[in-house]
Amino acid sequence: MSERSTDTTTDITLALTLAYNGADFHGFARQQGLNTVQGDLEKALGTLFRHEVETVGAGRTDAGVHAHGQVVSFRLPPEDYQATTLEKLRSSLNALTSDSMVINAVEEKPDGFSARFSAVEREYRYRYVFSAVEPLFLRPYVWWVSQPMIDVQAMKQAAAYLVGEHDFTSFCTAASSVDKNTIRTILSVTLFGADHLGEGCLVLQIRGNAFLHSMIRIIAGSLLEVGMRKREPEWIAEVLEARDRKAAGQTAPAQGLTLWRVRY
Amino acid sequence: MSERSTDTTTDITLALTLAYNGADFHGFARQQGLNTVQGDLEKALGTLFRHEVETVGAGRTDAGVHAHGQVVSFRLPPEDYQATTLEKLRSSLNALTSDSMVINAVEEKPDGFSARFSAVEREYRYRYVFSAVEPLFLRPYVWWVSQPMIDVQAMKQAAAYLVGEHDFTSFCTAASSVDKNTIRTILSVTLFGADHLGEGCLVLQIRGNAFLHSMIRIIAGSLLEVGMRKREPEWIAEVLEARDRKAAGQTAPAQGLTLWRVRY
Repeated sequence: MSERSTDTTTDITLALTLAYNGADFHGFARQQGLNTVQGDLEKALGTLFRHEVETVGAGRTDAGVHAHGQVVSFRLPPEDYQATTLEKLRSSLNALTSDSMVINAVEEKPDGFSARFSAVEREYRYRYVFSAVEPLFLRPYVWWVSQPMIDVQAMKQAAAYLVGEHDFTSFCTAASSVDKNTIRTILSVTLFGADHLGEGCLVLQIRGNAFLHSMIRIIAGSLLEVGMRKREPEWIAEVLEARDRKAAGQTAPAQGLTLWRVRY
Repeated sequence: MSERSTDTTTDITLALTLAYNGADFHGFARQQGLNTVQGDLEKALGTLFRHEVETVGAGRTDAGVHAHGQVVSFRLPPEDYQATTLEKLRSSLNALTSDSMVINAVEEKPDGFSARFSAVEREYRYRYVFSAVEPLFLRPYVWWVSQPMIDVQAMKQAAAYLVGEHDFTSFCTAASSVDKNTIRTILSVTLFGADHLGEGCLVLQIRGNAFLHSMIRIIAGSLLEVGMRKREPEWIAEVLEARDRKAAGQTAPAQGLTLWRVRY
């Protein structure tokens, strides 16, 4: 928890770091009549401060996508801020929001900070499980592929083509009109094995400045085709070049994806 | 999967290795009218072979206790065995049993093998989470203690007193009349940190020949008192000496415990 502002004239900017189970929300972004992360948070803030509080999220995760370290910012009038402490705010928000969400940190940020626009790097992780038998404890957090033999080396070779600044039109939901500029920079794509609760999985870790709609999930689906030897690693370069969603592989299921961390 | 027996006159002994989510069962042991692991397995075997099949489990886990590697043995008439394969048996059992249970392996065992009596070592793991904020993804598999500062070193010192052959009367449910002989041998007690799904926990790993009713959970509850500095590490030696359930700490919650592995 950072130093408290003592300024009593201007609004205070705060940031929450939170985790949530994507299965229990219709995505991050507020939607009338649907249970969303942002809607739930804003309802709790409204209850707490008795006025509307508008929030901004670092990543607009889709329905089913989990978060380990989502960041949400908002501004509070100084009188609201002076009436509480960061620790009280955290515990009140944890009490008022759904059990499927946990607020791990509340911090004061410099004026002008935006969880969305101030972010310099976002990290997502996509988990696959390759096994004849479905996993038990990891089931809600992975994409289970019932083929135990996977060419991870080929996936790593394919992943290397994605690093750098590219036009990722092929890796963006075709229907998405939100993303007019389709140029993005991927800082790294890493694949590593992990063991969680005694079950093994393959983790696809992607760091970038920002991502297009469904971009990570289309990358995950395309890399799987390489891992299953349906495609050569070089095919990923051709997909990028095509600038056409139809050139890429399937969109991997939402439940395998986690917004891991946001850096500022 | 091991070699298949071709003997067509005597019953075949098989062993299943399975994982289950303890939250969804009233424990391992079959009980009339209740959903139990053994009951669910025997129902599936009955459906598959059209006659009763009696099973034996390596560990009779209580309600709420999870399993990563429970072992269950049973005998099949040779004609049932010849009509299937180990792989088919595994997939049929996975299809017929609850989604909260996963059969990872089916093996043929030598005549006379018993999942319970042939076991030479059982390993249990108990997971604690020490943090101000409740964990999210690990919540169903841990004991959350809302005190971030814990003396793990003191817990390790205390744990060392438990290793070896002892009378564990103090660490056994007082009401239990099942355990007449209260002498058990603990082979090792280890404490280590782990990260699962991005959340940290402390794992208490206990290996022994066999355990009394609630023994691991009473050990977990007692070691916590040392970790919280309510007791000195040497207190554990006094508890052992007392041969009285009232001398030990509380029984830790079932959901933190997992039957990890059984060795033969």
